[in-house]
Amino acid sequence: MSTPAAPTATPTNSPTESPTDSPTDSATDSPAPGTRASSHGSASTALLTDHYELTMLQAALASGEAHRRCVFETFARRLPDGRRYGVVAGTGRFLEALERFRFGEDQLRFLADHRVVDRATIDWLADYRFTGTVSGYAEGECYFPQSPVLVVESTFAEGVVLETLVLSIINHDTAIASAASRMTTAAGGRPCIEMGSRRTHEEAAVAAARAAYIAGFDATSNLEAGRRYGVPTTGTSAHAFTLLYDSERQAFTAQVDSLGKGTTLLVDTYDVKTAVDLAIEIAGPELGAVRLDSGDLLIQAREVRAQLDAAGNTETRVIVTSDLDEYAIAALAAGPVSGYGVGTALVTGSGAPTASMVYKLVAREDSSGTLQGVAKKSKDKTSVGGRKWALRRRNGQGVAQAEVIGVGEAPLDDGDDRPLMIDLVRDGQVVDHQDIHEARARHAASRAELPRAAAQLSRGEPVIPTLYEED
Amino acid sequence: MSTPAAPTATPTNSPTESPTDSPTDSATDSPAPGTRASSHGSASTALLTDHYELTMLQAALASGEAHRRCVFETFARRLPDGRRYGVVAGTGRFLEALERFRFGEDQLRFLADHRVVDRATIDWLADYRFTGTVSGYAEGECYFPQSPVLVVESTFAEGVVLETLVLSIINHDTAIASAASRMTTAAGGRPCIEMGSRRTHEEAAVAAARAAYIAGFDATSNLEAGRRYGVPTTGTSAHAFTLLYDSERQAFTAQVDSLGKGTTLLVDTYDVKTAVDLAIEIAGPELGAVRLDSGDLLIQAREVRAQLDAAGNTETRVIVTSDLDEYAIAALAAGPVSGYGVGTALVTGSGAPTASMVYKLVAREDSSGTLQGVAKKSKDKTSVGGRKWALRRRNGQGVAQAEVIGVGEAPLDDGDDRPLMIDLVRDGQVVDHQDIHEARARHAASRAELPRAAAQLSRGEPVIPTLYEED
Repeated sequence: MSTPAAPTATPTNSPTESPTDSPTDSATDSPAPGTRASSHGSASTALLTDHYELTMLQAALASGEAHRRCVFETFARRLPDGRRYGVVAGTGRFLEALERFRFGEDQLRFLADHRVVDRATIDWLADYRFTGTVSGYAEGECYFPQSPVLVVESTFAEGVVLETLVLSIINHDTAIASAASRMTTAAGGRPCIEMGSRRTHEEAAVAAARAAYIAGFDATSNLEAGRRYGVPTTGTSAHAFTLLYDSERQAFTAQVDSLGKGTTLLVDTYDVKTAVDLAIEIAGPELGAVRLDSGDLLIQAREVRAQLDAAGNTETRVIVTSDLDEYAIAALAAGPVSGYGVGTALVTGSGAPTASMVYKLVAREDSSGTLQGVAKKSKDKTSVGGRKWALRRRNGQGVAQAEVIGVGEAPLDDGDDRPLMIDLVRDGQVVDHQDIHEARARHAASRAELPRAAAQLSRGEPVIPTLYEED
Repeated sequence: MSTPAAPTATPTNSPTESPTDSPTDSATDSPAPGTRASSHGSASTALLTDHYELTMLQAALASGEAHRRCVFETFARRLPDGRRYGVVAGTGRFLEALERFRFGEDQLRFLADHRVVDRATIDWLADYRFTGTVSGYAEGECYFPQSPVLVVESTFAEGVVLETLVLSIINHDTAIASAASRMTTAAGGRPCIEMGSRRTHEEAAVAAARAAYIAGFDATSNLEAGRRYGVPTTGTSAHAFTLLYDSERQAFTAQVDSLGKGTTLLVDTYDVKTAVDLAIEIAGPELGAVRLDSGDLLIQAREVRAQLDAAGNTETRVIVTSDLDEYAIAALAAGPVSGYGVGTALVTGSGAPTASMVYKLVAREDSSGTLQGVAKKSKDKTSVGGRKWALRRRNGQGVAQAEVIGVGEAPLDDGDDRPLMIDLVRDGQVVDHQDIHEARARHAASRAELPRAAAQLSRGEPVIPTLYEED
């Protein structure tokens, strides 16, 4: 594939700080933890739903079974091929979308005009409010095959219509966070900037920036992710800026005059060596960074670093972009690179663009009112019936040993086992909105707890096994 | 990856009709051509933009070069690996997003509070209205390497800030349409239903349904795509529905009672043969379709077809779903399959989740006011400067021979050469909103014009070469 002319990242050397550059060329700040930026306003999410959810609802309402209490479980049968672990993301976005899951006039008119469902079903949908409970893994938590990452308990009617929305959000965001975590691992503490907006759907881009931040990226190029979620944003200039001017000198001068000496100059529009000399001449020793976006990045980074150091620009950073993925980042560990900008590979999940989670009915009331585990028997798609608990078993040194899942009552915490399920919605009310800054810290802790092999980029089995514990 | 419990597709045998089932179990109708459903209402698209677009704007405004007339060209340097052609999609969505590209109070406050750009730039953005021109390939048109699929001509300031939005939309939708076209080719006239919403971002799902429809899919499971764009929608039931009931008999009876005998029954929750017998018993010869969603689909389709025929259900269709892609569809051509439901592979671009298009400054006024071609010189990312024209060269039999691109005045039409660029926006006004039904017909015609090798699924070179013609 070809290479994005990616935004200039201007990260600091510490992954815990927001990347900043100069006052006018700055990254945005994070809002106070716990604040939630408004998203789409009041746009309904109700029709982000597969047609069959509503026809099933119609048939179940008509037969009377729609009001049976049910448990729907969201899980992945396996990790993407060769991955050692996955990272849950999207939970907070789902909770926000759930609050907007309302069938308004436009939605109901569409269903009626196109005879998607009958009048009784439309009337039921008009009053739809989720009144059940949702529990699951907190955002940023690592997950493994069969981990019950999101569990909905409600009537069949209330839960079945959420299937598509749950899966769309969790599958996308989890795929991005899972890829992002491999990249931040490979970067080994050097800052990573998400800049893939142009290579994915415009709204997926906003969600991708959020998911990448949870998995350890330091900032994003996407402004809406800054506004909506408080992800720090950054960027300075592209090749088009240099080409706009009659000379590279005029372009660099205009940028430094407006954005300050701490800015990042893009040095590969014409000749890199000439551009770096020019950048040093114009901005002096305070030049913030130079960016390389083409060619052999390892060789060029070394050359440019030497050129900068020889001129006394020892504090000027070298930022690299250009079709990076976790493998390219790992290969650049040997070079004098101050930060990575990652685009296409991140927003497409680095080969695994969906987490392939499913949302399965695992238990329902029988005709006597008793909750019973259910599971289909299809040869290649078995699942385990019943409402699950989950915990991460750790050894005495705090290193994860297994993902332990069972049906029924969760065992008492013995200190080494870490319970994984938290309450997200009770009686229809969201009780934990999943702050992204907390999720980012949680992911760092969850990943640090895994065996060392989790950091290997080579293909392999999940780094810990999933065990089913009998009742 | 694991397999989606996909919605039941109930297509007819004719790809030109909307799939319908029974009155209450029906696909939605298309609106009259030319009508545009409202989309996100008035939500601003202005911050679906990379940070650096605005810092470039600030520097160019300060230096005075921001008002130079510029030409920005959207093109792909190459097709995804091994693909024979690509399919342009997203143009209509971009035009609609352009009309919502307005910096409102929320957007401006974010930029100010986070010091993304200075006050002069914020004031300029507050009044932003695109006043330039946009031309490009019509939606549904096939494209090749270097095809100038979308060209923006405006001041630098007005055009540079659109880069991210253009690329996000065109890259995503084009990737989906390009994959979808291979699938509808492989299906050879049998209907294809898009049902991948759950495997991609919830808004990307709506766009994917639209793009797939343009590339020949007959319907989608996504209700919002029906409401917003008039894509026919369809679906009946999933495994959860069968599992809700105390027996498969009760589930099938409830579905047929509510949705009619023309419905599609999902027959692989327990034992396929037993389920098909039960379906025939309950719905009789009028049973619309059965759906298979697991196992060896070719073998099972033959067995189920024989079972249906033996019972006199010769009109009952056999629909298959379960991780289909263009190769699986082609392999099922040998089987008695009435329609295909496609999910994950479609919405992830079947291995190519982005079209990798770039948006490059190719011409700008110099200080004397003359428009001059510009291009960066980076070793691995050369581009051709200047404002382009494009046409498809055809032989006397109307078969495409080459994509011909040139700079300057387009040659006069000689009858065999088909001009490819159309006007989309003039002086800031959208003049062609790109109706999706017309785009679907256009794609069918454009694909039919390509050499036969375009239909080959094997990896290869673009089916026609791209030629540059000198002035």
